[in-house]
Amino acid sequence: MKTPRNGRRLTPHPGEPSHGPLTAEELQLAVRNHSMPLEALRNDITPPGLHYLLNHFDIPFIDIEHWHLRIGGAVERAVELNLKALRRAPKISIPVTLECAGNGRSLLRPRPLSQPWQLEAVGTAVWTGVPLAYLLAQAGVEDDAVEVAFTGADSGIQGGVRQQFARSLPIAEALRPDIVLAYLMNGNELPPQHGYPLRLVVPGWYGMASVKWLTSIRVLTKPFDGFQQAVAYRYQQDANDVGTPVTWIKVRSLMVPPGVPDFFTRRRIVRAGPVMLTGRAWSGEGAVQRVEVGIDGKWAPAQLEHPAAPFAWRAWSMPWVADAGDHELACRATDATGAVQPLEQVWNYQGMGNNVVQRIKVTVE
Amino acid sequence: MKTPRNGRRLTPHPGEPSHGPLTAEELQLAVRNHSMPLEALRNDITPPGLHYLLNHFDIPFIDIEHWHLRIGGAVERAVELNLKALRRAPKISIPVTLECAGNGRSLLRPRPLSQPWQLEAVGTAVWTGVPLAYLLAQAGVEDDAVEVAFTGADSGIQGGVRQQFARSLPIAEALRPDIVLAYLMNGNELPPQHGYPLRLVVPGWYGMASVKWLTSIRVLTKPFDGFQQAVAYRYQQDANDVGTPVTWIKVRSLMVPPGVPDFFTRRRIVRAGPVMLTGRAWSGEGAVQRVEVGIDGKWAPAQLEHPAAPFAWRAWSMPWVADAGDHELACRATDATGAVQPLEQVWNYQGMGNNVVQRIKVTVE
Repeated sequence: MKTPRNGRRLTPHPGEPSHGPLTAEELQLAVRNHSMPLEALRNDITPPGLHYLLNHFDIPFIDIEHWHLRIGGAVERAVELNLKALRRAPKISIPVTLECAGNGRSLLRPRPLSQPWQLEAVGTAVWTGVPLAYLLAQAGVEDDAVEVAFTGADSGIQGGVRQQFARSLPIAEALRPDIVLAYLMNGNELPPQHGYPLRLVVPGWYGMASVKWLTSIRVLTKPFDGFQQAVAYRYQQDANDVGTPVTWIKVRSLMVPPGVPDFFTRRRIVRAGPVMLTGRAWSGEGAVQRVEVGIDGKWAPAQLEHPAAPFAWRAWSMPWVADAGDHELACRATDATGAVQPLEQVWNYQGMGNNVVQRIKVTVE
Repeated sequence: MKTPRNGRRLTPHPGEPSHGPLTAEELQLAVRNHSMPLEALRNDITPPGLHYLLNHFDIPFIDIEHWHLRIGGAVERAVELNLKALRRAPKISIPVTLECAGNGRSLLRPRPLSQPWQLEAVGTAVWTGVPLAYLLAQAGVEDDAVEVAFTGADSGIQGGVRQQFARSLPIAEALRPDIVLAYLMNGNELPPQHGYPLRLVVPGWYGMASVKWLTSIRVLTKPFDGFQQAVAYRYQQDANDVGTPVTWIKVRSLMVPPGVPDFFTRRRIVRAGPVMLTGRAWSGEGAVQRVEVGIDGKWAPAQLEHPAAPFAWRAWSMPWVADAGDHELACRATDATGAVQPLEQVWNYQGMGNNVVQRIKVTVE
């Protein structure tokens, strides 16, 4: 057992992982946050109300007349910018698939107690805004900078710590040309729940890195030790394991469940005959190179479309001739690093990065 | 015990109401559908992605090139209209508060097994479209018409019955001037999950009446007996009770939880001193006339703002001087019919219309 850095022994979530039924607290979180219904995998770009959403605290009220972004810390020139000034700066637009680091958590046994995601905490949007690297160059990053910390306007308590949501990036990541301070989502003003007026978007990283309701950017000469960095969002084996930080999105594929659902059980009913199975696959660690579809445990390669951008999902499809009876469908992706989705869970204490393959039970009639 | 009309003994949901913990099926529904985070009570008009959403089946894919609305049945002239034709017709815009009939269900003991809403299945939007009464007049309603049935493109299985989602209105309701066939939500094209390209909006009725992805309107000379009318959405005492139909929204008020939340428990932490408590109240049965705020069981009247429209919620506020310690906040509204929110649950088998008062536990520091 290791000791968390700076000697704290906070746990990110109350209570040990559970073999028991869902708790009232988990339901409260499931009711607040929402995932992307899997049929929305049809869309290249996810409409804002269908894009997954995980907010730790309340959606803050932003008075745009008084809002500004501060850039400070280890820089030559501290900067304050309002939204008008940001809109005058150079801009880029980039399609990005974002996924919650906790996606798949409620499928783990035992189940870490937090937002009880199943499989659908994902979405793809076109984010438009100012390249972070441009603003950092304007401010002039000092030579001894090691990280950049980003703070949002959302605040509350977690793990007993009163905090504003804040995360950092290593300086090399922060200087990537494709990291955006976004003020548009799919061409429109950011919705309140997605970070209005400004959010960070870090392509390829799990969603916690893309800090919403951004108010402050600080260049640091020491690693950031805020709660969401040093305690939450870590791959740990137990509460006392310092663990390793959650960063890049692991390879995953999902399938649009074919046929129609039963309202309550969500079991799928499919008509016998030819069915085109479709879905999407993505990875932050390396480009998706292969998707296989499993029909009752027998795997075959799917056809892949080109992605819209390096960190946007790839569409895939595979024709299937459905014969009457019960079947189990599955899909698994492989990325350029050779990483492949596991068939069985890879458990960790916070329930992070569970990219176990999706399985869909269908009844063909 | 009574027999359901037309002799069917279907139950709307599998299984008897439960005293047990949340089931996997309920979690699946909670993950798909979503409610409005209570801090969005701040907004007069709810952004689309924050408006509550309850879809029984999958969001259907609509090929707009081939989509059209059919109006038929007991009319003089059957009509088919595409979206262009509908956009050329006279239009109205109306702010409407919609609430799911199952809102509050998961608070009931025992708990009916279906979408496990807590309190937030509500939202207010400005709907723009063609008055239904105008199109019915164009088609010419026959004298013996008693109801109008509305069918959506969404399909699946519920209670063992394969179906497209369909509901009816009594003819007198259908001819109200404020019922809209909406193609815009808050001035924009309907999002897919809210019924693109066209939905019915029935101000004052629970949300199930506002059929999404509308494909067909049929004027009927006998009452409609589809599943969502004759079996689901009824106030029943048990599975064999034919019950009474769910129609108008019951009076309800909600409060923006003050202070900041704990991430997991959602318990509120409030700083001691003056706090403005705010919220909204609405009723389909009669205008909201009074909102009272309860602090530790002591009730006092809140100040009410004027509503934007007869069926849009009313903002309310009440100053509170928060003193250190634990407190329970509550609010309850009364409407023009004299109906007041109950302090204790009024149970029914499907968990419909539970407008029990909201209670918020806060710790003042």
